[in-house]
Amino acid sequence: MLEMRKPIPVSDAIAKVINHTCQNTTEYIPLSESYGYTLAEPIIAQQDVPHFNRSAYDGFAIRSADSVGATGMNRIPFRVIDHIGAGHVAKVALAEGEAVRIMTGAAMPTHADAVVMLEQAVVTEQGFTIRKPFEPHENVSLQGEDACQGEELIPAGGFIHPGTIALLATFGYTQVRVTKKPIVGILATGTELLDTFDDLVPGKIRNSNGPMIAAQLARLGVESRSYGMLADDMDACYETVVRALRETDCLITTGGVSVGDYDYLPTIYERLGAEVLFNKVSMRPGSVTTAAVANGQLLFGLSGNPSACFTGFELFVRPALNKMMGSQKLYLPYEKAVLTEDFSKANPFTRFIRAVYRSTPQGATVTPAGFNKSNAVSSIARGNALIVLPGGSAGYEAGDEVDVLVLGVEEGTAEWLL
Amino acid sequence: MLEMRKPIPVSDAIAKVINHTCQNTTEYIPLSESYGYTLAEPIIAQQDVPHFNRSAYDGFAIRSADSVGATGMNRIPFRVIDHIGAGHVAKVALAEGEAVRIMTGAAMPTHADAVVMLEQAVVTEQGFTIRKPFEPHENVSLQGEDACQGEELIPAGGFIHPGTIALLATFGYTQVRVTKKPIVGILATGTELLDTFDDLVPGKIRNSNGPMIAAQLARLGVESRSYGMLADDMDACYETVVRALRETDCLITTGGVSVGDYDYLPTIYERLGAEVLFNKVSMRPGSVTTAAVANGQLLFGLSGNPSACFTGFELFVRPALNKMMGSQKLYLPYEKAVLTEDFSKANPFTRFIRAVYRSTPQGATVTPAGFNKSNAVSSIARGNALIVLPGGSAGYEAGDEVDVLVLGVEEGTAEWLL
Repeated sequence: MLEMRKPIPVSDAIAKVINHTCQNTTEYIPLSESYGYTLAEPIIAQQDVPHFNRSAYDGFAIRSADSVGATGMNRIPFRVIDHIGAGHVAKVALAEGEAVRIMTGAAMPTHADAVVMLEQAVVTEQGFTIRKPFEPHENVSLQGEDACQGEELIPAGGFIHPGTIALLATFGYTQVRVTKKPIVGILATGTELLDTFDDLVPGKIRNSNGPMIAAQLARLGVESRSYGMLADDMDACYETVVRALRETDCLITTGGVSVGDYDYLPTIYERLGAEVLFNKVSMRPGSVTTAAVANGQLLFGLSGNPSACFTGFELFVRPALNKMMGSQKLYLPYEKAVLTEDFSKANPFTRFIRAVYRSTPQGATVTPAGFNKSNAVSSIARGNALIVLPGGSAGYEAGDEVDVLVLGVEEGTAEWLL
Repeated sequence: MLEMRKPIPVSDAIAKVINHTCQNTTEYIPLSESYGYTLAEPIIAQQDVPHFNRSAYDGFAIRSADSVGATGMNRIPFRVIDHIGAGHVAKVALAEGEAVRIMTGAAMPTHADAVVMLEQAVVTEQGFTIRKPFEPHENVSLQGEDACQGEELIPAGGFIHPGTIALLATFGYTQVRVTKKPIVGILATGTELLDTFDDLVPGKIRNSNGPMIAAQLARLGVESRSYGMLADDMDACYETVVRALRETDCLITTGGVSVGDYDYLPTIYERLGAEVLFNKVSMRPGSVTTAAVANGQLLFGLSGNPSACFTGFELFVRPALNKMMGSQKLYLPYEKAVLTEDFSKANPFTRFIRAVYRSTPQGATVTPAGFNKSNAVSSIARGNALIVLPGGSAGYEAGDEVDVLVLGVEEGTAEWLL
């Protein structure tokens, strides 16, 4: 008896997964290890930035009032009464006609309100002369100009990147409250699977999905635990799934979700009492992608076909894990690009085509990455993006503008373009 | 005596750095740890992919010749003589009118050349019937259709991402030859610097550049070693620089590269016998960015101002490290976007403005990330991109199209847009 499954649209499937995903609890971690986490609390300015008026240049701190009337013909002289580098504080306040030699970043002396840059001064025996008047605050970084104490600078949920870390360091955070990252289990199913180190034998292939998913998780900064490969054996598979769910936050299986005689995952979901969120998505590849929830834990049943597995991960697993980690930006980066070659194959389902995306000042282009079936593996390796073609659309021609989801975001461009 | 420095264009400065950067030697590492490295040798197909003719679906393997003439009115019957799952091989060859029940990925039995999908068959007592003829190879994945043995699939220098790992696993690579990653030293200079855990005192600020650079390196997958913070003390600074050069592949210092009284880096370069590649770049912020080479090792002297330091890293250090790691794609990803607000400040130098880039099907926009001086830190935290405005250009207005370099590539988008 062949089970009939009703496909649901990609966006509905994503929404179902996200609605069943909970954000993890929070923890404190050292600032030096916080890159790639998301903030579990906003960054509030703990002090004004800068927290004192600072010289913006190497030069001389003066009272701007003393510079009024200076011209090339009427140079005004200043006496240098002190000399301070950054980190030091002038010992005396300025009186009329006095100046302090000051370095970039040093606190302005009392009564000083402008800085003459070294290249604006002509040094004399007693000090220097200037040939133009200075405005109050000229060449001075004012207290609080970057941020005021108490101001919320970055909301909770912000991704902790290098700039965030600079800000946290400025405010003295040695520990940061972040959302915990999940640990994700990976279990490959299929009697045909060999390990990477195995020699090929007739009818069998090496497991490429397991190592691939571990790397997709690594790209998200998420730790994985491999539960190896299981032959299509119902009981062994069930026991391993139960153990994996106990030991991890979320489980990804590959294979076994279709309607074949050895596709045991549907039965395992039933034995777990899991709610199946969907088991057919109107997309190519990956239409058999399945998501289920058992005791609040997500189970993703990805296709055993590499391209379908890869796509299912990026579309459904990625946003769920991002949500667990507290992120506000769950989905793959979007770009628009011009197709460089015809893509004539139409399909009633939404198509995700592995492709090479390239953006330059002359425009952004995208090119299918070669052999394009759900069992393809070479095109995953060649691609850095997915072209998205809406379901039901006719074929596309070179020159058409298409939607692109960018995957290979670790890489840059080969030429300096500017 | 004020030293006069001649600024060089950004692209010239980048070219100088790259011309003085050597690729690291290679090493073998386990496949499971290879994500983020670059391939030191091309991936050559070690076998055909698939390496045997496989069923593309769950169904029945038949001889297509036996299906000729099948219609709804003239259903052709088949006897099922065997039953194989993926990973197994049929024991017998097909004779006329015979079929083997077969699962996705299983090797085609001898003489079988087409697969009837389960939903295309009506099951009977003896087997099943079909109502249409099947072409040779219909529903079959042919040996070598994805890749042929001996074919070069990915050239040396390719970034190892999840798809690359899937391909390497397919060919049985347990170890991968990659280009070694550098270890980079970080040394912050400046008497004004406090550690993250220090309380603020008048005239001093916490070191934000050191933690920020460590995170910029982490974003590239590069290990860093901190040499802490040094007061503006010439001899101590020199000793630490010498030690750092001995212990790392490349050294980044912050501060001390301008023309102030405590800017010792120029003297240190001299004592090291280093060749200074440039010490002034026609860019804002970061015009004092310096690069030097001592005994083949690169030294980057970044500004002590956070925004200038950040920009100097992304423009010059990032491509150099990428080249050391064997990458072919050294530079920040490029995008074009529409400015959402006026940016009136013109400058003779090329400007790099920290900004928020957002791309949607309605277009890509970019918005300056707030306070925009070289000492700014909050805008680095808010931004995920750099707007690039050519030197000498007048101000820009909302609606103008501008060049953008994308930094925050770890993050995606907040909404599913398709």
